[in-house]
Amino acid sequence: MKKLMNNADDFVKEMIEGVYLANKDKYEYVPEINTLYRKDIPANKVAIMQGSGSGHEPAHIMSVGKGMLDAACPGAVFAAPPMNYVYECTKKIATEAGVLHIINNYQGDKMAWDMGREMAEMEGIKIGTVIVNDDVSVEDSLYTVGRRGVAGNFFVIKACGAAAEKGASLEELVALGEKVVSRVRSMGMALTGCTPPAKGTPIFELADDEIEMGIGIHGEPGRRRVKYRPIKEIVKEMFDAVANDVPFKKGDRVAVMINGMGGTPISELYIAYREAALLCEEAGFTIAKNYVGNYCTSLEMAGFSLTILQLDDEIEELLNEPAEIAIRVF
Amino acid sequence: MKKLMNNADDFVKEMIEGVYLANKDKYEYVPEINTLYRKDIPANKVAIMQGSGSGHEPAHIMSVGKGMLDAACPGAVFAAPPMNYVYECTKKIATEAGVLHIINNYQGDKMAWDMGREMAEMEGIKIGTVIVNDDVSVEDSLYTVGRRGVAGNFFVIKACGAAAEKGASLEELVALGEKVVSRVRSMGMALTGCTPPAKGTPIFELADDEIEMGIGIHGEPGRRRVKYRPIKEIVKEMFDAVANDVPFKKGDRVAVMINGMGGTPISELYIAYREAALLCEEAGFTIAKNYVGNYCTSLEMAGFSLTILQLDDEIEELLNEPAEIAIRVF
Repeated sequence: MKKLMNNADDFVKEMIEGVYLANKDKYEYVPEINTLYRKDIPANKVAIMQGSGSGHEPAHIMSVGKGMLDAACPGAVFAAPPMNYVYECTKKIATEAGVLHIINNYQGDKMAWDMGREMAEMEGIKIGTVIVNDDVSVEDSLYTVGRRGVAGNFFVIKACGAAAEKGASLEELVALGEKVVSRVRSMGMALTGCTPPAKGTPIFELADDEIEMGIGIHGEPGRRRVKYRPIKEIVKEMFDAVANDVPFKKGDRVAVMINGMGGTPISELYIAYREAALLCEEAGFTIAKNYVGNYCTSLEMAGFSLTILQLDDEIEELLNEPAEIAIRVF
Repeated sequence: MKKLMNNADDFVKEMIEGVYLANKDKYEYVPEINTLYRKDIPANKVAIMQGSGSGHEPAHIMSVGKGMLDAACPGAVFAAPPMNYVYECTKKIATEAGVLHIINNYQGDKMAWDMGREMAEMEGIKIGTVIVNDDVSVEDSLYTVGRRGVAGNFFVIKACGAAAEKGASLEELVALGEKVVSRVRSMGMALTGCTPPAKGTPIFELADDEIEMGIGIHGEPGRRRVKYRPIKEIVKEMFDAVANDVPFKKGDRVAVMINGMGGTPISELYIAYREAALLCEEAGFTIAKNYVGNYCTSLEMAGFSLTILQLDDEIEELLNEPAEIAIRVF
């Protein structure tokens, strides 16, 4: 295992410190609970937080900023945050308008967030929860009852984050988040596995001529292992699985995301986007917004996921609102 | 070799088509010369272009946009564009104010751009040239007389792009570009090699316990191969090489970039940034701007480079001007 790190134990801590050092003007940092939160959360705004396992960056620790998350409190690599992180982080950012928990659907996360929520509610904090489960690859999974939450999570944060800035109530945000979840679907694939720092060996291995369709972001088994093949065939299989699920229909305005798994160069992601754009055109979907890059990764895994979100006027408008996170070009 | 592509021959073409399909509202696309250019180049503005080999994305084909490049005309993967790409692209975007060629210092590129420039000048187009050579790793290199041009290139484009939007003349832009070049230094390292699509095998290989310090972005040999070691030691060696070169001095305001080589997850890049930020503090440099992400890559190579730019008021102001390229988060 070769990684840019000092040692496996400090991987998450030093990553978060790096994000903090790069954004000291914007964030408060509480190392004891792996938490970054916005310095300037408006007192009358619902505060939004998330924190699943680390290793999926920019989700979630690098997605804190105006119009997105107000705080993140990730656990170790591929491990849910302990319940006290959830509890303490909730207390730090709570406003009179309440706190929205956005949770990706994994059993470990749900347990930590259920308990953290209960602890915070006992202190009178008003909390709403949205569960993200956009991955169509498999029903029930290694760490999931029901579908997994993956890159579609970004759209739930973006829509709720923008609406919260505009003054939406906690109840309105829960309803909005659930609407986005009902309209967003994803599927991923892997060319390679990845190596968690503390483990030191790959979570799974694929042969030189083998890929896995429907992979999870923690290496959970997908739908099937197949021979390496042209991107056209890969995107077609993913597109059909995603588009037939909501189902999306001719005439829909959609947002399309090609999300890199962490180790895939942007050149290849645009080659995949090209295939998705051609398929959308063929299916009669209008791509109103596109997203190509790393949004929800699995360490250095090579591969990508396809996410399609069915827009309506409200969601499209919210996606167009300004927002900022740690990740930026300029 | 497993890549998200249909076949090696179409790699660059389909990547550029993908970028175009994702940004049809902003770009014109001329497939015959691998060229994307801005639809809205102001008639009285100096037009800025670049185009080295492909495989370094987002440099250069994904760096076209307001306040950055007006056009890019890359060659095949790790191959300079043919001279006629340079010539034709120059003609497409030429304005009365002239055209600025920003070239990374490789012999192949210089030859193509010298000839392309000559052809365009014969038609009365006014052209200025800036050569970027920020890599302190080695003097003269496999494909270079003098130092190589790497990620520092981003700052030359950003500064000249912003100044051009504000009405700077061609002569002023050449002087500004040369000033940025005189103040920016970089050094890279690799954990792994990478595989050009047409070659199908890695350009070099590193053992499981081996890294290469001072690597070039086409796999050119660096300073030395050493045993894998903690990031603290890696960044220290790079920092010393970079900071002692200009040389930077206590009290300087600087921009710091941690540039991923293509296959490195953003988590590891922030761990590297943390080390660089601590060293800057120790050295008495004030980091006025920071950049962590993929700016000048080498396909799926794992590794990173450190770039430090010595700011003055003019450059700092230009870095803060608005700009946009194909790569974006929202």
